[in-house]
Amino acid sequence: MLEERWSLGKFLCVGLDSDFEKIPDARVGGVIETLYRFNRKIIDETHDIVCAYKPNAAFFEGCGSGGLQALRDIVTYIHKVAPNVPVIFDAKRGDIGNTNEGYMTYAFGYLGMDAITVNPYMGGEALKPFLDRKDVGIFVLCRTSNPGAGEFQDIDVAPLTEEPLPLYQYIAQRVAKHWNTGGNCCLVVGATRPDELREVRAIVGDMPILIPGIGAQGGDLDKTVMAGKDSRGRGMIINSSRGIIFAKDPRGEAEKLDASIRACLSPVSS
Amino acid sequence: MLEERWSLGKFLCVGLDSDFEKIPDARVGGVIETLYRFNRKIIDETHDIVCAYKPNAAFFEGCGSGGLQALRDIVTYIHKVAPNVPVIFDAKRGDIGNTNEGYMTYAFGYLGMDAITVNPYMGGEALKPFLDRKDVGIFVLCRTSNPGAGEFQDIDVAPLTEEPLPLYQYIAQRVAKHWNTGGNCCLVVGATRPDELREVRAIVGDMPILIPGIGAQGGDLDKTVMAGKDSRGRGMIINSSRGIIFAKDPRGEAEKLDASIRACLSPVSS
Repeated sequence: MLEERWSLGKFLCVGLDSDFEKIPDARVGGVIETLYRFNRKIIDETHDIVCAYKPNAAFFEGCGSGGLQALRDIVTYIHKVAPNVPVIFDAKRGDIGNTNEGYMTYAFGYLGMDAITVNPYMGGEALKPFLDRKDVGIFVLCRTSNPGAGEFQDIDVAPLTEEPLPLYQYIAQRVAKHWNTGGNCCLVVGATRPDELREVRAIVGDMPILIPGIGAQGGDLDKTVMAGKDSRGRGMIINSSRGIIFAKDPRGEAEKLDASIRACLSPVSS
Repeated sequence: MLEERWSLGKFLCVGLDSDFEKIPDARVGGVIETLYRFNRKIIDETHDIVCAYKPNAAFFEGCGSGGLQALRDIVTYIHKVAPNVPVIFDAKRGDIGNTNEGYMTYAFGYLGMDAITVNPYMGGEALKPFLDRKDVGIFVLCRTSNPGAGEFQDIDVAPLTEEPLPLYQYIAQRVAKHWNTGGNCCLVVGATRPDELREVRAIVGDMPILIPGIGAQGGDLDKTVMAGKDSRGRGMIINSSRGIIFAKDPRGEAEKLDASIRACLSPVSS
């Protein structure tokens, strides 16, 4: 699905971070109706532009069982109006082996997601049920976009690798060389430090990389695209959430960002 | 709440890993009723023995919005029949700062949990909303009990610390020395390697440690208790899930494990 979107020149992912308190007129309807209506409008306005959608679990789970029902309805709606646009569940999950089955039933069965983000800390053995599920995308957190991401992710794992290497790059190596037996692995690398994105791209070849941190979090788009594109000028899913969904004109903002990404990828710029 | 349970000699945590497929007669009632009835029976039989309950998010989320409603009802029931027994939400969450607010509303607001497990990979800065919430317990994953836990957790972070030190011990140091400003931090350390538990205990002083991996996962109880107890012979929450909840006689199994823990802590044994 991603390859098809990329072949159409689409790299923009809209993050459906539907913070209930920030939704205009949120208090008028009930939780399910409010979340559903808000997201349907965003989807109607952007589905012909985007490469993917990425709802973040926290904003829906924060609304309890109604939030889950709304999220399920929203994913169903995306599949109806834009069947070729994958939906990535940004849930950052991960538990020991058999327990992950519950999260997979939740994400891929109940909610109907096409992909999920997972946390690598427990290792590839723990995540095996995800890695074995070849019909979905597994996005492993590699370098996150938060200011304090380096506390553990930048630790030098030199004793293991002979050469100095930060943990997040070692994780990228492990995913590319050992975890990706099912061919369904992808990575999450924040846009906040393009040099780090370039290092990861060099390690993982043409593996898809989800890149949050553009816009509200301050990532530089041109540097990000130059660092993040694969050997074919593809391989990127560039996410913007608040900058689009809470804008006065979500379609206008999405079009602007989409045009900027294309400009970065045009022969003159690259 | 934990101190009070420990003062009563209670260290056993029952893991409510309510795998829907394994519940006897699961198909007779609906999801909510089945999950609720199964767990209510476990709670009725064990609440006077336990130190805490630990429902794992995956098994309830795997049942969709009905699973969430059942979990909420179960937590309400625990608070009613055993108001002094804390409920730890084993959800292994963690996202960037403001996004964690959604998970906190979910865990502490909607579901009524007293504590949550979190994943340290994104760093203490990302988890600040959890660490600032002083009225709840925050259990940081340190050394997990799965066979492949060492892939990253055992990495030697020597360049950072002058002396060889595995990542999981460095995380224990960071939590004890830097993250625990609100006094609400606890750790998760598996029972599968008692030596590692002893090392972590030496680093974190009397900080509460949740210890999974007894029973089905093969941890040795006597060695675990000797390694895990704090300077006062307390500080442990020893979890058993499948070994109790799917036993023919859950109360009998819980009593047996409770007695074994006490025996390990008795003057003769220690």
